[in-house]
Parts: sequence; C-alpha cells; structure tokens
Amino acid sequence: MHKLLILSSQADEYLRLIQEAQLNDLACAATSSPEQAILRGRDCDLAFGEPSLLCHVLPHLPGLRWVQATWAGVEPLLDPALRRDYILTNARGIFGALMSEYVFGYLLAHERHILQHYKSQQAKQWDDTAPGTLRGKQIGLLGVGSIGVELARTAKHFGMRVRGYTLASETCPEVDTYFHPPDKLAFAAGLDYLVCVLPQLGATRQIVDEQLLAALPAHALVINVGRGSVLDESALVDALQSGRLAGAVLDVFMEEPLPPEHIFWRTPNLLISSHTAAPTVPADMVGVFLVNYRRWLRGEALRYRVDFELGY
Amino acid sequence: MHKLLILSSQADEYLRLIQEAQLNDLACAATSSPEQAILRGRDCDLAFGEPSLLCHVLPHLPGLRWVQATWAGVEPLLDPALRRDYILTNARGIFGALMSEYVFGYLLAHERHILQHYKSQQAKQWDDTAPGTLRGKQIGLLGVGSIGVELARTAKHFGMRVRGYTLASETCPEVDTYFHPPDKLAFAAGLDYLVCVLPQLGATRQIVDEQLLAALPAHALVINVGRGSVLDESALVDALQSGRLAGAVLDVFMEEPLPPEHIFWRTPNLLISSHTAAPTVPADMVGVFLVNYRRWLRGEALRYRVDFELGY
Repeated sequence: MHKLLILSSQADEYLRLIQEAQLNDLACAATSSPEQAILRGRDCDLAFGEPSLLCHVLPHLPGLRWVQATWAGVEPLLDPALRRDYILTNARGIFGALMSEYVFGYLLAHERHILQHYKSQQAKQWDDTAPGTLRGKQIGLLGVGSIGVELARTAKHFGMRVRGYTLASETCPEVDTYFHPPDKLAFAAGLDYLVCVLPQLGATRQIVDEQLLAALPAHALVINVGRGSVLDESALVDALQSGRLAGAVLDVFMEEPLPPEHIFWRTPNLLISSHTAAPTVPADMVGVFLVNYRRWLRGEALRYRVDFELGY
Repeated sequence: MHKLLILSSQADEYLRLIQEAQLNDLACAATSSPEQAILRGRDCDLAFGEPSLLCHVLPHLPGLRWVQATWAGVEPLLDPALRRDYILTNARGIFGALMSEYVFGYLLAHERHILQHYKSQQAKQWDDTAPGTLRGKQIGLLGVGSIGVELARTAKHFGMRVRGYTLASETCPEVDTYFHPPDKLAFAAGLDYLVCVLPQLGATRQIVDEQLLAALPAHALVINVGRGSVLDESALVDALQSGRLAGAVLDVFMEEPLPPEHIFWRTPNLLISSHTAAPTVPADMVGVFLVNYRRWLRGEALRYRVDFELGY
C-alpha cells in the first residue's frame, strides 16, 4: 500500500483525475495547504504537486521516497538546505505544444502587426501596411530540450530556418544548424528571432547578455519563456531603448509578479505575458504521474528524474 | 515573338523578375497606368496584372489572347459587359501559406489573450489569466480550395479537429469531416472557429447569414478572409452586440476601404485587418506566370484557368 500526498492549488482536480485511474494499492490525501499537508500527509511515501508548496513540507514527511513535481523548473526543491534523500521527477514532455502556441502566437502577431491593426482600428484608420512572414526567417532556439524540439517542428511547418544552441546534443532533425559554447555570438548573428527556453541553472544565468543582444540584427525579436534569470534585464532595456533591438516578449522575470515600479512596464517594444506561456494542464500532468507510478510499482527507473546537482 | 503587357502597381518589380528569367521570344511593356498601358500595350498578345487595372484596358488590346491575373479573385474581369474572348488564369497556390499565418496568428492571439495582455501591461497589471489552447478545438473551413487545404494542414499541426464545407469535393486528407449544401447548420454546430475562405460568387453571397451565425456556439470566433460579400454584415453586428458570438476577425468587406462611418469600427469584439491577409508576393506570382508561359509556348493547357460562368 502506498500513500500519495497531493499538495497543489489544484488539489481537488488532481485528486479527481488520479482517482479516476482506479489505481490499486494507493491512498491519497489532497490539499492546497502546506499546514494541512503536514498534518494529513505525515505517513505518505509519495508526493505530487507544486515545488513552491512541497518545499515547505519536505522536512515533515519521514517516509517520503518519491516526489513528482508538476512544474518543469524545480528550483524551490534544489535549495541546498533541503533534504535530497528521495527521488525527484519533474514535469516534462507536456509543455512543448503549449509553448509552441505561445511562441508562434507572438511571432505571428509581430509579423502580422496585430497590435498595430488594433491601434489603427481604434482610430478608425484603414491600415493596409504590408505584413511580414515567417517563411524563410531564421529562428534561434537557446536550448533544444523537449520544448525546443516542439518549437523547431512548428518553425519547420511555417517554412523557417532553425538554429539550435545546446551544450553538446545534436539530436533534433528539425534543427538545421547547431551551435555550442563558446559560439554564442556566431549563433546570434543573423537571427530574426531568438527564443530562450533554458532552465534556471548556474550555467544559464544571464546567458542572454549585452554581447549576445549586440550580436543580434537590429530587426530581431527576443522571446524568453525559460526563466527570468537567463536574461540580463538591464542589458535588454538598453538594447530596446536605444533601438538596437526591435522587440522583446517576456513571459518570465527575475522577480514575479513583476513589481509595479519595474522599468519593463514602460520599456518600448516590450510585451509582458505574466508567466502564462505554458500552464500545467492537470490531465496531461496526471498522465505523466500515472506512467511513473506504474514504473514505480514495477521497480523500474522513473522518467524525468532530476539530478539535484545539475538542477534538471 | 510574344508581347507581354505588365499592368500593376508593382510593375517595375514584376518586370525585373520576369526579365531575370531570360525568356526567349518575349518582349515586355510595364506600367502602373491604364492610360500608358493602352498606348504602349496595344500590340500585346499577353497581359499580366491586377484585375482592377486590367478591366480598364481590355477593350483596347485587339490581339489579346491570355491574361494572367495576380489576384485570386478576378471579379473586375467578370463584368458581363466585358469581352471574354481570351484565356483568363488567376493566382492560385501562392496564398495558402500566408493565409495560414494570418488565420493562426489571430486564432493564437485570441486563445493567448495577446490584446488583453497588452491592455493589462498599459495598466502595469500582472495578468496571469490562464490561456486557452488550439489543441482539441474544432475548426470549420467554409471552402476547401488550395487555401483551405493549407489551413487544414496547420490546424492538424496544432492538434485540432477539422470540418470542411464544400459543394461536393472531399479530397483533403486533413479534413476530418465534410459537409455539403444544404447541411450548413449541421456544419456550424459545435464549431470553436469558423473560417471563411470562399470566393465572391452568386452562390456564396451572404452564405454566412443570421441562421449560420445563430448555429455557432456563443464562444465561437468567426474569421473572414474570403470576400466581404459572403458575410451578412448586419447579422454579424447583431450577433456580436448581443453577445451571441464571442468575436470576429475580418480582413475583407463589402466596401473597401471600410468607410469611416461604418459600424464595424465600433462593434465590440470585432478586429479589422484591412485586406492584408495574403498580399501577392511578386516572386511567387512570377513563378505562377513562368510555369504558365512555358505551357503556353508548348501549346499546353494553362494552370488555374478561370471559367467566366463559374467565376473561378
């Protein structure tokens, strides 16, 4: 018999979906409150939920052996002060399609002048400015994991050229050209769009810096759907304010929610989407859990295990 | 020896591209002025350009045998008062990719609340309203010609379900379910998005009428990239004003440019893009001409010949 603690702001939805699967030998305690979790989950061996909540209850779950995080980024659980004597798996493979809708929604809105058309419409102006197109454009993916692969597929659907920047891997057939450290500036030269999908790690901190931004063409658009820490925020503001960069679309930030006084709110040609690019879809997330739970029962290695040292 | 009249607002660009192809036995006269065309093109046997310009010079070109239109819709040349003693071919196969970028740009902007995020940003508000998704949604294509096929392909790329409404054909593998007249209302029931890509014909006039709009779910979005005449404009305004329809995106109108006093400028949840969905890309258009010119030289049937009676 296993006992699963579900600790999530969507605890009821997750409980319902997991109970629907009618798993043998599994009892569940579901709550959105860390305090309740400590009271009711003390005897659990498995936990499932948001890293931002789970980090508070880790010390109070003596029998814990496996945690399935519902996020891709698990930073709250990587605090060196926290225990690491359990198996941590993260959410992977379920964000690519949503990220693709987000990135290509903003790329197409940019090429199709959707905001400008909206403004012209407010002024009752017939605005037949010729649109741009994605076809033939060069997109650069900073990070080619499961999300980057999905972005590359959609880019190819729209007839684009695709560059990938990775530590070493070159496994995605939809990437035309791979670049690796230290060739960051060669990667950036000539890009029409730079899309950052990197996780928050020591090695990715401010990888989008003044030099990388300066290496981009002035007409380029930067999109960050990775983590806020991968971008030098003040270098981006300088590039946008001086017109050396055409635009940026940011979903993630160093501090979230973005404070009201932050300069990003009034930086020209910068769009803010408030960390909505790829919300976890409960049914997809439970699918990840169920596959792993069945592997756990059979004693098989779990999918998407996080290396506490690497951070992903 | 053939002589080609190029009559187009982009005459210089077209002349350059056609001359680059170094065709044998072809002389060209290029102008953007119908008056100049009559003076300089009187002895031409071939003509190439915009139907809205060509219709003025048709009576003055005694040797004319073939006209290659640079538009998909050739309404100005279908006036029964005009001659029909020549072969008319239209532009086809070059708009699908652009139309797909337009339609999915607006669908994704809708699901991703891109305009709402922009407004929230103006108010310095962190707006993490959950986005919608295209995945699993039902799109209905009113017309499945070369443009509809391209839309169906992109819809499948994003994991959507696809319905097609055609006179009789059922040849596109990306369409899951076909509907034919008179099953218009069954086609509309349950659609998340209705996309109209029909040409202007007697049979398509106001095909998007009060009944069709009423058959759509209240959360549906209507996109018209066909011709303005296919839509009952006042029925659409009623549906939007009463909230029986979530939104509309219109690229084409009964009267263009849309007059400043038109109610569409202030109709709620209606977006206007001023006939920019699929501009003719000169290099693509010249590609169509070159294929047809070589067929003409060999005495073969031309591609995309318009039937003056059918109108397409």
